[in-house]
Amino acid sequence: MNERSQGPVIAVDAMGGDHGPETIVPGAVQALASAADFGIALYGDEAAIAAQLKALDADQSRVGVVHCSENIDMSDSPAAAIRGKPDSPIARAMRDQKEGRVRAVVSAGSTGAMVAAGLLVLGRLPSVDRPAIATLVPTLPGELLLLDAGANVQCSAEHLLSFARMGELYVREMLDIAAPTVGLLNIGEEESKGTELVIEAHRLLREAKFDFRGNIESNKLMLGATDVVVTDGYTGNIVLKLIEGLSHVLAAMESLPQLDDDQRQSLRPVLSVLLQKFSYEVYGGALLLGVDGVVIISHGRSSSLAIQNAVQIAHRQVHLDIPGKLQAELSA
Amino acid sequence: MNERSQGPVIAVDAMGGDHGPETIVPGAVQALASAADFGIALYGDEAAIAAQLKALDADQSRVGVVHCSENIDMSDSPAAAIRGKPDSPIARAMRDQKEGRVRAVVSAGSTGAMVAAGLLVLGRLPSVDRPAIATLVPTLPGELLLLDAGANVQCSAEHLLSFARMGELYVREMLDIAAPTVGLLNIGEEESKGTELVIEAHRLLREAKFDFRGNIESNKLMLGATDVVVTDGYTGNIVLKLIEGLSHVLAAMESLPQLDDDQRQSLRPVLSVLLQKFSYEVYGGALLLGVDGVVIISHGRSSSLAIQNAVQIAHRQVHLDIPGKLQAELSA
Repeated sequence: MNERSQGPVIAVDAMGGDHGPETIVPGAVQALASAADFGIALYGDEAAIAAQLKALDADQSRVGVVHCSENIDMSDSPAAAIRGKPDSPIARAMRDQKEGRVRAVVSAGSTGAMVAAGLLVLGRLPSVDRPAIATLVPTLPGELLLLDAGANVQCSAEHLLSFARMGELYVREMLDIAAPTVGLLNIGEEESKGTELVIEAHRLLREAKFDFRGNIESNKLMLGATDVVVTDGYTGNIVLKLIEGLSHVLAAMESLPQLDDDQRQSLRPVLSVLLQKFSYEVYGGALLLGVDGVVIISHGRSSSLAIQNAVQIAHRQVHLDIPGKLQAELSA
Repeated sequence: MNERSQGPVIAVDAMGGDHGPETIVPGAVQALASAADFGIALYGDEAAIAAQLKALDADQSRVGVVHCSENIDMSDSPAAAIRGKPDSPIARAMRDQKEGRVRAVVSAGSTGAMVAAGLLVLGRLPSVDRPAIATLVPTLPGELLLLDAGANVQCSAEHLLSFARMGELYVREMLDIAAPTVGLLNIGEEESKGTELVIEAHRLLREAKFDFRGNIESNKLMLGATDVVVTDGYTGNIVLKLIEGLSHVLAAMESLPQLDDDQRQSLRPVLSVLLQKFSYEVYGGALLLGVDGVVIISHGRSSSLAIQNAVQIAHRQVHLDIPGKLQAELSA
């Protein structure tokens, strides 16, 4: 497998997530069916990956394996792990992206390690001060892009403006929305509401060139208020995990003591439809926007389907050259 | 009606909320059935209140009416409205509480005006630096008390500690939980996670005398992590409104295009059970904890049932002397 003949290669951390190669390898290989012009490279324990590939019985001409002798656990301190475990899938794949051997990295491993590797190894785009984690959140009519979902716990108003510009471009390019709407998460609609940070951010966003719709209260989020919603990384992470918790609530509904057996019975197929819409399964993962490359952070509990989606999103970002477009637009 | 013969009187803003006297008056009168030892006083337009009372055909010996010639709209600036509309139900009822004519104020009107009136008219308990809005949030196993849900957008770690102490006492006394557990809302379980504010708050909470269970991530909230969860008022308000939004999402699920007619049919009775559990209808409202009195802020969309619950909660707070106990415990 080499980039010349196969097109761009997407690196996939085969060891990440709660389920490891058993889930990651089939999901990543499945993604290849979506387009003929890319390959994947699976990073991790060679024997474990080979065992999964053998079981798959699929055409593997577009699949490479990169053996890694180390791995980053969830208990490792992120920045230290990138430096201290250079032969882990995350550190190695990110170096390979920096050196042009792969064009994107997908991992369901430690979010902190992925962010640290993105910042330390790939580095920021010259026009971006703070990369942000962006994530698609399900809404009743569709989905919205929330950022920052956790990369920067403390932000300035200028950072929020930059998040908005990155998010707007991403949605415009990746979701084919001609003029995405942008909202600022806040505790009231009036511009005087909220912390000093959001009051100042509101002022900056109002001057921006995109379609800013003002403050969005969180009870409007899942009704689909705007295409992009910006907030600081502390608040964004809390919102993201609360919405994630909704899938646990849905899953637990069956066991509510208020329901009788008949109701439980009839609820089961309906819940599976709802879970399909509201679970992180169908969402490929979070993106680290603003680094000099493509970085996708999948949920630790990702299924094969989630990994498949993540690889396809990575491929689409490479295909559309999202980092290049971000740099061009934000430096303008 | 006078306090000597009827026991304590609960003031109810009959004009507050989206539906006004039509909803508030029946709900408040209904609450009287829960105990014989208190009365209510309805504040607002005398004629409108009288019309509702007449339609009710209930024993009204424990019901008083206080005519008010003004009213505070949602568009009024809160602090200015309390000073500028002294004959509004909120301003007048709060003065009557300060002067001992009533023992609690319930309103589904402007949250801002209720907080401003609580602070300006009743004042803080001597041992409380910052009163907080506390609200019960439904969880799968039961409920939790979240505070601050919006009174203080910017907080110090000492404020969060004080919120925790108030919330712990409230849950212990009002919900009869012998040793409530307390959590700190954060973006990770490790004590090093989060903003400077929460890292410092974690340190203070660890030293406290109650059962502090550490950081709580928001995906655990609705699974029922702890009895009390503390956060700053900006984050708390966002969490509260996001959970509120869940009831809209549940209500809208029926219309999801992914469901067929049979599935919709079977979902309907289940949703009504769930909505019963997760809607703010059944929760009486938010409390302003830490002022020198009892202040209940009901949701603008409150039904009669929600108002009835709010009045009962107010009565129970008076009966248990929550403000007196807060002062005694926090000054110790």
